[in-house]
Amino acid sequence: MSAPEDQDDLMTKDPERAQSEHGGEDQSQSKASEIAQDLNYGMDIHLQPDFVRSVIEAVHAEDRELARSLVAEQHVADIADLFEVLPPEERRTLAVLVADSLDPIFLSELEGAAFDDVIRVISPQVIADAVQQLDTDDAVYILEDLDADAQHQVLHALTREDRMALEEGLAFPEDSAGRLMQRDLVAVPEFWSVGQTIDYLRAHDDHEQPRDFYELIVIDPTYRPIGTVPLSRLLGCQRPVRIRDVMTPEPHIVSVSTDQEEVARQFAKYHLISAGVVNEHGRLVGVITVDDIVGVIEDEASEDILALAGVSEGDVNNSIRDVTRTRFIWLFVNMGTAILASMVIGLFEATLETMVALAVLMPIVASMGGNAGTQTMAVAVRALATKELSPANAMRIVNKELMVALINGAALAVIVGFVGIIWFGDILLAFVLAAAMIINIVMAGLSGILIPMMLDRFGIDPAVASSVFVTTITDVVGFFAFLGLAALILI
Amino acid sequence: MSAPEDQDDLMTKDPERAQSEHGGEDQSQSKASEIAQDLNYGMDIHLQPDFVRSVIEAVHAEDRELARSLVAEQHVADIADLFEVLPPEERRTLAVLVADSLDPIFLSELEGAAFDDVIRVISPQVIADAVQQLDTDDAVYILEDLDADAQHQVLHALTREDRMALEEGLAFPEDSAGRLMQRDLVAVPEFWSVGQTIDYLRAHDDHEQPRDFYELIVIDPTYRPIGTVPLSRLLGCQRPVRIRDVMTPEPHIVSVSTDQEEVARQFAKYHLISAGVVNEHGRLVGVITVDDIVGVIEDEASEDILALAGVSEGDVNNSIRDVTRTRFIWLFVNMGTAILASMVIGLFEATLETMVALAVLMPIVASMGGNAGTQTMAVAVRALATKELSPANAMRIVNKELMVALINGAALAVIVGFVGIIWFGDILLAFVLAAAMIINIVMAGLSGILIPMMLDRFGIDPAVASSVFVTTITDVVGFFAFLGLAALILI
Repeated sequence: MSAPEDQDDLMTKDPERAQSEHGGEDQSQSKASEIAQDLNYGMDIHLQPDFVRSVIEAVHAEDRELARSLVAEQHVADIADLFEVLPPEERRTLAVLVADSLDPIFLSELEGAAFDDVIRVISPQVIADAVQQLDTDDAVYILEDLDADAQHQVLHALTREDRMALEEGLAFPEDSAGRLMQRDLVAVPEFWSVGQTIDYLRAHDDHEQPRDFYELIVIDPTYRPIGTVPLSRLLGCQRPVRIRDVMTPEPHIVSVSTDQEEVARQFAKYHLISAGVVNEHGRLVGVITVDDIVGVIEDEASEDILALAGVSEGDVNNSIRDVTRTRFIWLFVNMGTAILASMVIGLFEATLETMVALAVLMPIVASMGGNAGTQTMAVAVRALATKELSPANAMRIVNKELMVALINGAALAVIVGFVGIIWFGDILLAFVLAAAMIINIVMAGLSGILIPMMLDRFGIDPAVASSVFVTTITDVVGFFAFLGLAALILI
Repeated sequence: MSAPEDQDDLMTKDPERAQSEHGGEDQSQSKASEIAQDLNYGMDIHLQPDFVRSVIEAVHAEDRELARSLVAEQHVADIADLFEVLPPEERRTLAVLVADSLDPIFLSELEGAAFDDVIRVISPQVIADAVQQLDTDDAVYILEDLDADAQHQVLHALTREDRMALEEGLAFPEDSAGRLMQRDLVAVPEFWSVGQTIDYLRAHDDHEQPRDFYELIVIDPTYRPIGTVPLSRLLGCQRPVRIRDVMTPEPHIVSVSTDQEEVARQFAKYHLISAGVVNEHGRLVGVITVDDIVGVIEDEASEDILALAGVSEGDVNNSIRDVTRTRFIWLFVNMGTAILASMVIGLFEATLETMVALAVLMPIVASMGGNAGTQTMAVAVRALATKELSPANAMRIVNKELMVALINGAALAVIVGFVGIIWFGDILLAFVLAAAMIINIVMAGLSGILIPMMLDRFGIDPAVASSVFVTTITDVVGFFAFLGLAALILI
């Protein structure tokens, strides 16, 4: 049976053409502004300050009915956002008031401190019910953050089968493909026909299959993945066609132990929608879908940004205590490097006493070196993360950074030299300033590229560790070069 | 027809159980190490330095056959990576040797300077052939980066229909949903049955439909999207079921003019696989799929990282000239702020002459303020980008940052105070150092959160502009507070 003619143009290649035939430009004009408004305010309309204020009022009044009616009909992702913007006290009370009325998946949407607060006040039975209804990856996400006691309680409220599946999921290392994967999946043997596959899917709908999936994984009799069939291709084929004749062979697979960052990189590079996950024997044990990967990519990028700035945890909802402690560690380490730089200055106390202008100008050299080093370092860290910088092109990139540093160092040296002449009227001083500037910017460029590469080679995350080293070098070299040259030439 | 019993366990919920029944543990043991090896080296095996060296040798010998055989059978994404790691000269020669033998989609995988180099040396006819075969979004990606002449040439080598579609795509603003969307899509009316839809897809396979798709978009007679049906759900339904009874109503849609960063945020938040794109009349004109969004998320995160570090373009393949120029601008601006900070020091020349220890210690205060400000700023910029920081919780977050700054400022002041006493044996000097430290770290915390928020409010990207302001404040306040207090108390 083919689609009737008059409906055909509804599905035509270019919808624009079809709609002009349908006319109706006039009636729809009035609706246009409505829609535009919806689009403008988008899906965050519910998190306008007014809405949040209403929720807070309902929470303060402990008005369960009102609170439930406010969050009812909201998308779970919006409900999670709501919990995240609330202050901790109100967050916990709201959870007590409404948690059991929500789609359990909202728990897997919560992050960081908001998750901790909510999970602490709702009963283990509600958590167990939620875990039972969720896909394995979402259930593991919730379980992994519970403390040992609560985890034990929840696991023992489950059926034996579910418990075993989740315990296996939890046994994989954190941030591994094993944690991220969904165990419910649809795999078919290559000798099936398209018709057989569709009949199977119809017969087994709802209870055994994962919520939504986008590709079938084709397996051999020993459960090794040998191909994939996108559902759109399956739907385009006649019933008698064999799966082996429509599958894409050599599927992209990942091992259970692969780090999620590497999994994400492969999804991004190869435009994957899903990837089979295999155990150490090469057998299919789960599947990772792209919607989970989007979250991983966002998180990993955030981690890199924050790590470069010396912040280990970027959740704006964390408690003051946690934030203060983690940031303090970094500041303390940096105080060490700042004191080191000061000790370098201390070596030249006599020089500074003779010529106080040096004290005025020396921060310029250090600061410019710091900026140039940070530029190169950020590019290097990002290129290492995306594998654009690899042993295959390392030499070329290092040479390029050296050239860039020489050119910019020279240009800035000329400018800062003129500033020195105009400000202090001292050509020799200006020359020392200019020379120190070139030296420090070249050192900054070299350390900005070489330090991240070395850390990466030694298996240390360059985003976390690079900036302490780079800043120390640019500070120490900056002060030493400037004051040292001054001591030699000016005094 | 239902699936035969003996095949059923191939598709069971938990593959682990099925495979133990299948046995075969022994025969497969030997293959295990092979597979492990494949997984370890992954899909980048071809970009090992040895492989790149072979390609470079083939290029230098201008050995067309060898070059073609080396890149044949590689995944297009790996071919793109190969072009990106090659030096510019070799890159262009390789393109001349092999471009016409490759799947045209490899052009849409190239980025930045690698794309520019390759596109410049291959003939407009090869580009036109490629564009003709690609999805609209990939074709637009290629066309938008051509210079006006080449674009004109390529467009006029196309059929009128294709040309018009691409010209429309190019008319949308850069980085908008209109540029990102794919115009070929499958939309169905709600009154169709599942069977009718499947028959339609079978009848129209290959030429009119997009390559792969994951959801059907359900439309009303005026072409407005009213729902979506994931293909897995379509496949699970019996033929007579009506589309309206299985669709998810109120689909997530985006407008053609929505910025791609906002589109990406919605995909991430709502775990979307695809989203319909509507024009100003609310009518469906295209679809964006998650595989394109993964690239956007990576790019936008990279942009933020690099912008914070003062780099406008992170492509390691850009030419030395481009890199030098863009980085110079930032360094030049920062030299202005460094000179400003020096001028603040200049105000206290007399004080410094009296007590040279101040010159030794003053960089500690400025540097710690800079670090604390950068920490807060990175968190704020990231939270603004992910909308975790919004008017609804702004006051709470600012208060929290103030508290964190007060606590860490006090702790670090005590420590640096002791350092001052031990080093210089001067309690008053140590007190001045400690007081300046608290003042500067609190100022750093406040400016680190308030400056990004203000820039965001005024529609300026906080990632690009924040750090100049924050560093200026921490430098100026640091030197002024320390030297000013010293002038008041010590001299």
